[in-house]
Amino acid sequence: MNDRLRRQLEFIEQTDALKSVERRTAPIGLARRENSAEHSWQVTLTAMLLAEHANEPVDVLRVIKMLLIHDLPEIDVGDVFHYDKDGIDDLHERELAATKRLLSYLPADQAAELLSLWQEFESRETADARFAAAVDRFMAFLMNRNNGGGTWAEYQLAAAQVLDKNAHIVAGADSLWQAVTEIVETAVKSGHLTEERDV
Amino acid sequence: MNDRLRRQLEFIEQTDALKSVERRTAPIGLARRENSAEHSWQVTLTAMLLAEHANEPVDVLRVIKMLLIHDLPEIDVGDVFHYDKDGIDDLHERELAATKRLLSYLPADQAAELLSLWQEFESRETADARFAAAVDRFMAFLMNRNNGGGTWAEYQLAAAQVLDKNAHIVAGADSLWQAVTEIVETAVKSGHLTEERDV
Repeated sequence: MNDRLRRQLEFIEQTDALKSVERRTAPIGLARRENSAEHSWQVTLTAMLLAEHANEPVDVLRVIKMLLIHDLPEIDVGDVFHYDKDGIDDLHERELAATKRLLSYLPADQAAELLSLWQEFESRETADARFAAAVDRFMAFLMNRNNGGGTWAEYQLAAAQVLDKNAHIVAGADSLWQAVTEIVETAVKSGHLTEERDV
Repeated sequence: MNDRLRRQLEFIEQTDALKSVERRTAPIGLARRENSAEHSWQVTLTAMLLAEHANEPVDVLRVIKMLLIHDLPEIDVGDVFHYDKDGIDDLHERELAATKRLLSYLPADQAAELLSLWQEFESRETADARFAAAVDRFMAFLMNRNNGGGTWAEYQLAAAQVLDKNAHIVAGADSLWQAVTEIVETAVKSGHLTEERDV
C-alpha cells in the first residue's frame, strides 16, 4: 500500500487506545464506566442531531470533526474529572503535547488540519467550537439524569457548582442551557444535587 | 424544554444502549470484545480520514451520518457475525424494523432523513454508501491484523472466504481493497487465515 495510506492506518491503530480510557460517567443503567470512544460516538451523533439548536449557524462537518478527535489526548493524559482541582493547571499543555504526538502518525497536511481543529475546539472562539463544546458538556447532564444523579450524587456536587462549571453551554446553544437548568432543578428536588456546597 | 428537543434527547437516551451491543472483534491488545458504540466512533473517524481514497467523489458529511447510525438496529437485533449462516436470511427486514422503531423517537423530518440514509447505506447503490460500506468492512482487517488474527483465527476462516465476503470493498475504494489483499496474504503466511476452507 502507498505511504500515505500506511500512515493513516497507523494513526487509526494508535488511536484505538481511546477504547481503554475510562470516564467517570456510566452508560445508562450499566454497572460500569463508559470509555472515551463510546462517548466520542455519542457526542458526535448528538451534535449532528441538535445542530439546529446552535445559537449561530454552524458547519456540521467541522463540528463533527472536532468531536471525533476532541478526546484523543486522553490516550496519554487520561480523563481528568472537571470538578477535580488537581491536574487542571497544566492540563491544556499536556493535552496539546499528546494531541501533537498522536497526530504525528498522520500525513502532515491532515495532522495540521486536525491540530488546528482541536485547538479551535479548546479555545471556543468560533461558532462551531462553541456549539461543539456545549454539546460535549451537555452529555453529562443527559447521562446523570438517567443514572440516579450519576457523578453528581457520587461526588456530592452542588447545583451552583455544576451550573458554574458548565456555564459556557449558553454561548453555544440557548435551548441546551435551558434544558440544563431544568435538569439541575429536578436533580436538586430529588436530592441528586445539593443546593449548597458542603465545604 | 420544547417538544422537538425533548424528542431528540429521548432518542439519544434510547440509543445509548448501543454501548451494550457486543461485537466479535476485540480492541487492539485488550482481552474483551468491543461494543458497537466504540466501533461506530472508529469507523466514522476512519471514513473522515480516508475519504480521499474513495473511488468516486463523496460527500463526507453524508458518509459520516450513515456511519454514525449504521449499527443502531443492533440494539434490537444484536451484532450478527458476517460468517454465520444462521440469522442472515431475514436480517435486513429485522434491522429495518429496529431502525424504524428507534427513529420513531425523533421528530418526523429527522427520522425520515436518517431512515433514508440507513437504507442508502444498506443498498450500496450510491458513491457515498459504497465508500461508507467499504470502510465499515475494512475495520475488521485492521483489528484482526493487530490481534494475532482475531476473529479469523478464532473461527478458523479461510482466505477465500474472507475475500469473498468483503469483495464489495473494491467498489468503494480500490486502495483499501489493495490493502485488504496484502493483509490477507500476510495473515495466510502467519497462519491466521487458512488457505483452503475446511469443510
